[in-house]
Amino acid sequence: MRADARRNRARVLDAAEALFADRGASVSTEEIALRAGVGIGTLFRHFPTKEALLEAILMERVARLGEEARSLATAADAGAAFFGLFSRMVEQAVRKRSYLDALADASFDSRIARSTVGQEAVQALGALLARAQSAGAVRRDIGVPELIALVVGASQAAEHAGRDDAVRARILQVLFDGLRPVDRAPT
Amino acid sequence: MRADARRNRARVLDAAEALFADRGASVSTEEIALRAGVGIGTLFRHFPTKEALLEAILMERVARLGEEARSLATAADAGAAFFGLFSRMVEQAVRKRSYLDALADASFDSRIARSTVGQEAVQALGALLARAQSAGAVRRDIGVPELIALVVGASQAAEHAGRDDAVRARILQVLFDGLRPVDRAPT
Repeated sequence: MRADARRNRARVLDAAEALFADRGASVSTEEIALRAGVGIGTLFRHFPTKEALLEAILMERVARLGEEARSLATAADAGAAFFGLFSRMVEQAVRKRSYLDALADASFDSRIARSTVGQEAVQALGALLARAQSAGAVRRDIGVPELIALVVGASQAAEHAGRDDAVRARILQVLFDGLRPVDRAPT
Repeated sequence: MRADARRNRARVLDAAEALFADRGASVSTEEIALRAGVGIGTLFRHFPTKEALLEAILMERVARLGEEARSLATAADAGAAFFGLFSRMVEQAVRKRSYLDALADASFDSRIARSTVGQEAVQALGALLARAQSAGAVRRDIGVPELIALVVGASQAAEHAGRDDAVRARILQVLFDGLRPVDRAPT
């Protein structure tokens, strides 16, 4: 991809992400093109359908998640690195869930799982988890499938709790306590 | 409502619940009427829209949940009663989620919360939780809002785990360990 095409693609993605987050998936592609400062033809060349656009945004998030997990791979406190990333994943998912729900189906999950960024993210998450387990901060009987399912579940639980921050904090605390080794000392 | 009208209503609900569970919310009302052995006019008199039918099914589940919670109110082992009901709620939610998703929005949540069966169910759940807390089986810093959000989250996590029963079991185990008092003995 040429540099200006790459730049246009990134601008469309940024504009779409901001508009979707503000007003949900019903925002029109015309409005996204306008906000991005590109013509509608340019937008459609990169993303022929709105679904393609949503999928690209989600794929970018997976890529960023993988990067963040890799950047934490040598953190001094492996437990804090793990629980910190877990919290941020839940926070992000709650903020963006409204417009990404449409994509959260099994077929998309499997497309992510097969993609390179998806596999890299899973690998990085697995490394972070293994390190937190070795450090005695996380129980040893869970793997990446449990971790991802728990993040999905925690996001849904947090969203259900709505704007009550205290309820959300206690939900995460229950989950984090459950993730600690079973014979842990009181926290 | 007359006895035969009540009977017809119950038959429509049973037929709809079975068909929805098998094949999702796209099942036609004609097919539901056929399975229930009532005319389509009878069905529409009780449930003018498919949404009304779905909502009635969900409301029935809330009523049954309330009944079950009340029936456990004097169980010998308050902790086992609590965790058993939690597991069954998650199991049920996973089995029926596919067709109830459409309704799982905030406006429906608040209609349930305002309904008599909803309030009775919340009260019975709260009593069960308080008893399990008094028995030292459940941490004391959570209430019914956390409990409901955690059931919703656990259901979503279990569904995400798909057919892998071992992953689902470990997810519930993480949650249950997290729900125990923090200074609990090793289990």
